[in-house]
Amino acid sequence: MAFSMARRMEVLRASEIRELLKITGRPEVISFAGGLPAPETFPVREMGEAVERLLAEHGAAAMQYSTTEGHPPLRAKIADRTNATAGTRFTAEDVLITSGSQQGLDLTGKIFLDDGDDVLCESPTYLGAINAFRAYGPRFVEVPTDDDGMITQELDERVRRCPRAKLIYVVPDFQNPTGRCWSVERRRGLLDVARRHGLPVIEDAPYRELRFEGKSRPPLVALDADDLVVHLGTFSKIFAPGLRVAWLVAPRALLDKYVLVKQGADLHTSTFTQMAIDTYLDRFDIDAAIGRIRALYRTRRDLMVRAMEASFPPEVSFTRPAGGLFLWAELAKGVNARALLDRSLGRDVAFVPGGSFFPNGGHENTMRLNYSNMPADRIEEGIRRLAAMLAEARSGEPAAVAS
Amino acid sequence: MAFSMARRMEVLRASEIRELLKITGRPEVISFAGGLPAPETFPVREMGEAVERLLAEHGAAAMQYSTTEGHPPLRAKIADRTNATAGTRFTAEDVLITSGSQQGLDLTGKIFLDDGDDVLCESPTYLGAINAFRAYGPRFVEVPTDDDGMITQELDERVRRCPRAKLIYVVPDFQNPTGRCWSVERRRGLLDVARRHGLPVIEDAPYRELRFEGKSRPPLVALDADDLVVHLGTFSKIFAPGLRVAWLVAPRALLDKYVLVKQGADLHTSTFTQMAIDTYLDRFDIDAAIGRIRALYRTRRDLMVRAMEASFPPEVSFTRPAGGLFLWAELAKGVNARALLDRSLGRDVAFVPGGSFFPNGGHENTMRLNYSNMPADRIEEGIRRLAAMLAEARSGEPAAVAS
Repeated sequence: MAFSMARRMEVLRASEIRELLKITGRPEVISFAGGLPAPETFPVREMGEAVERLLAEHGAAAMQYSTTEGHPPLRAKIADRTNATAGTRFTAEDVLITSGSQQGLDLTGKIFLDDGDDVLCESPTYLGAINAFRAYGPRFVEVPTDDDGMITQELDERVRRCPRAKLIYVVPDFQNPTGRCWSVERRRGLLDVARRHGLPVIEDAPYRELRFEGKSRPPLVALDADDLVVHLGTFSKIFAPGLRVAWLVAPRALLDKYVLVKQGADLHTSTFTQMAIDTYLDRFDIDAAIGRIRALYRTRRDLMVRAMEASFPPEVSFTRPAGGLFLWAELAKGVNARALLDRSLGRDVAFVPGGSFFPNGGHENTMRLNYSNMPADRIEEGIRRLAAMLAEARSGEPAAVAS
Repeated sequence: MAFSMARRMEVLRASEIRELLKITGRPEVISFAGGLPAPETFPVREMGEAVERLLAEHGAAAMQYSTTEGHPPLRAKIADRTNATAGTRFTAEDVLITSGSQQGLDLTGKIFLDDGDDVLCESPTYLGAINAFRAYGPRFVEVPTDDDGMITQELDERVRRCPRAKLIYVVPDFQNPTGRCWSVERRRGLLDVARRHGLPVIEDAPYRELRFEGKSRPPLVALDADDLVVHLGTFSKIFAPGLRVAWLVAPRALLDKYVLVKQGADLHTSTFTQMAIDTYLDRFDIDAAIGRIRALYRTRRDLMVRAMEASFPPEVSFTRPAGGLFLWAELAKGVNARALLDRSLGRDVAFVPGGSFFPNGGHENTMRLNYSNMPADRIEEGIRRLAAMLAEARSGEPAAVAS
């Protein structure tokens, strides 16, 4: 039977990335499409030891219901790590455990957004955030962004023109999809605009600890003197994503609202996975493990960048990220990346067409490339095939220039 | 800073039960308040073996991202178990894994409800469903319900008067909070009304397999010939709740909508906990384990019912559930259960005032008592203390009769 559904269902679409990942699961496909961490970095043996210890010491508690806020010792460790890496002064009570940062985004939409409200975001921005927020019916106001981050003046002008602006969403460190890292000046500029207009800032920071070179920059939450920032962090990129354990840090009154909506959304995040990670952190050195992840991804980024520099047509520009999992390429004006993807899937190479990351459309000549999940030889082979297709597109073959 | 929030935040309240559970965590409290399974039934040793095997065989996959729909072998096992216990013919493709049934309720609200729509439900109904749906702004239309379930004629009349009726939510087996189990006739009656009015039926069935005596009755999903029913099941009450793994079975076109909104809500449920349960099901006999849970809860129900029959004032009526975790008591008209709770917490006994389960208020002379989580001696002692307080209330002591 066909039922009457909520209006929001008319605008929701399946994530193109997740649909694409179903195709690219075949082992012969060289996939630059997903945002998958390298599985060889997962602490499988350590996880086994942690679970064994956990079950021996707290077996029943690990399998029982627990509080919405999260496992207190894990919240304390997250506060401590944030303080150590960002110079903040949080305690366990400032932290809420979430079921992945994706849930942090969904709860954010639920708390702040009514139909027709405005969300300000980078252009392009993270697809998962677009999908989460879209369920609450906002307009997306894309703010022009360059290699230093969101342009402060452009943000200010747009906020002035948006009486229904409700929040600003940003990924300041090694952004998904571009790999860009904001300058400190732009970070301060953003907070200044947010403060003047009384807007909350959602700082999504999954890649913050994956810097390959240079000095780390303070997250917005560390620069915030006015209780403006909700900071989202996750174990997905520094431990393993399959446990779905992430967190958010927010001003106390706002954190209470997140707890309230999380109660209705899933009661609480798995006690078992929270306590397993907590036990892992007690027994193993996560910073050393993150160091190994960084080293591996740096090597892969280097390979991909060098291969692209050597073989891509000169009119293709792309970012050289100093951290994270992704780089971003802009093709010649006439080239359509969705059409290119159709061809490249035929040659067992996948990427994500960049248009997906612009909530209001356009920019079809862009692409996101992930370098964290493929070994060296496949990165080189995949870029070689893409370069060949770009050369064909340049020579005017119809399949790749069709709209 | 105080931000402008969505309108829904004005009506959301913290679950009284979850707030209460924070108080009742003290070991000296005899708590009939939560809906906690007995931790001594959790398969801790088996879980350890399952995780060890899982990590040895599929360690990296268990820690990686996976599909929104869920782990395919687990979906297949859930379909098979549903078919075996309910006589249905589902396959893995009919099943979506959710992060607890609470998420199934939240996704249901997101799919079906716009501000001002009507949800039809039993009176009283499950508090977690009220909280999940309330975020989407509906009115709750309570349908009179007796020991055989929702009264068909009353439902039909209310649906006729509700042009904005969008869904019917019910817990037909050993309902939370009353412990009631619907007759087959009422089940068929409900489906008939739903079919005539084109309304989806959300069947929440966490306690279905916890029947202590008598013959099990077909779930709505087994009686549904018209693709009306979304059936929610969970491992929380037959395995352990701390893993937050549940499922829903829905007509294919509708399941696609659930997958879509789940993508935006948390990408997918923990790969690790899904695969751990799947491995447990491969290696151990969950039906035997459920048999042990049933036997334990039956004993505890017997104890509580006998203690209440022996000591509660005659004007208190209460249900004698044939399964599940809860019974429901109706006190004399003038007695206020919230005031009684204030007193009983002073004597280290907790329960949930029944008024919480009526979305439109009233019925303050009712209470929900959980018998699954306390050992025999504490059940008897707790009921003894409650009986003493009820006797005092009867004699007109002011604290217990204040409004």
